Amino acid sequence: MAKPFLLGVLGGMGPLATLDFQRLLLASTPAQNDQQHLPTVVWNVPQIADRQKALAGAGPSPLPQLLHATEMLNRAGASHIAIPCNTAHHWYDALSAASDAPILHIVDATLAALKQEADRPQRVGIIATKGTLEAGWYQQKMAAEGIEVIEPTADELTGWFVPGCYAVKRGALEEGGALLVRQAHALFERGAQKLVLACTEVPVALDAVNAPFLDLTFDPARALAERCSQLWQAR
Amino acid sequence: MAKPFLLGVLGGMGPLATLDFQRLLLASTPAQNDQQHLPTVVWNVPQIADRQKALAGAGPSPLPQLLHATEMLNRAGASHIAIPCNTAHHWYDALSAASDAPILHIVDATLAALKQEADRPQRVGIIATKGTLEAGWYQQKMAAEGIEVIEPTADELTGWFVPGCYAVKRGALEEGGALLVRQAHALFERGAQKLVLACTEVPVALDAVNAPFLDLTFDPARALAERCSQLWQAR
Repeated sequence: MAKPFLLGVLGGMGPLATLDFQRLLLASTPAQNDQQHLPTVVWNVPQIADRQKALAGAGPSPLPQLLHATEMLNRAGASHIAIPCNTAHHWYDALSAASDAPILHIVDATLAALKQEADRPQRVGIIATKGTLEAGWYQQKMAAEGIEVIEPTADELTGWFVPGCYAVKRGALEEGGALLVRQAHALFERGAQKLVLACTEVPVALDAVNAPFLDLTFDPARALAERCSQLWQAR
Repeated sequence: MAKPFLLGVLGGMGPLATLDFQRLLLASTPAQNDQQHLPTVVWNVPQIADRQKALAGAGPSPLPQLLHATEMLNRAGASHIAIPCNTAHHWYDALSAASDAPILHIVDATLAALKQEADRPQRVGIIATKGTLEAGWYQQKMAAEGIEVIEPTADELTGWFVPGCYAVKRGALEEGGALLVRQAHALFERGAQKLVLACTEVPVALDAVNAPFLDLTFDPARALAERCSQLWQAR
């Protein structure tokens, strides 16, 4: 017998972004009462090794903690798992192999949303961690769709993106937002027509400072939430 | 060996209130980085029998689903459990007996917060479900502190409180807020100096409509979140 639908959210990276993902799940689901909303079990444990540092070879791997979270979500009865953190998808294969519940991939969800756009962009900027950029998932899948990808430079990452993210993580949304707005403008100036905000801290911060270009952005966390909601509604 | 700290949140009643409780947990915890925030595992499964109807004898009991949630949170490693729903505390004894992890009681957390007030009120109004009011937990513990309790009338509950709550549950925050503001004013007019908002939908709705008397209210969910955060910080 199939397990009843229960979405396991492997979160904690960071705790605020995990809340935002849950808000997106509610917003993606037309519901007239509580019972129509997605059943979820959310692992929001921020005591996990820093993904950016691990991928830079400057810290321990988060894989043991990610595997533990996957095991606990399976034990709690999850029928599907979503990870609202782009960088953590570096360990996607190992986690998928260890999980009974299938893990939805955030890049697949984003590309599916991008392909459905009426006004499909030719050049897309991407704001993401060095780890996500080096992994090349977004670039490869967008190239396969004939979309040119515009990436942050190394200087932009160290000057704007990284301090912007860590500001969000300590709750300084305005400070983080201001830095991330500068990163976004740099990509628009180099020709990006739209932006993929491929790090869950970024949309939270741009929202907090009311960035005027939000309608030109894709939020992979939102695309992932919408895919989860579609699965729930189609069950 | 003691289990590592992991707060299990038995939520889902409703899904929006469960998000609000997680936001209160973050707000209650001074943190400079992700790792300093409370580790939580959140059961947000709204497919649970209606508590108000069950207590009115008009529907099935939610106890089997509450017991299942308690078991799953224990399986996922919870060291403590919090239930951010006043009415669900009707089943507190049965859940506590079935849980390895101790369950914090929302009324104890609220009374502790009320007792710490510099400007302690003599007459406190309470906005709550019929089930919570009939259980008498708040009334008994406030009476023991010499505080007079002012309750909604049956007409106020059916005219304002109940439809207000269900409006919140379907996401109509402004509509729910307007009804709950009328309930609040009625209690102030009968002499309440402060209000205990003893149903997790109420603070969400009053916040959404910017009710001008919010500084005269106690939010038991906030008191519970602060108690959880204190436990985490003192670990």
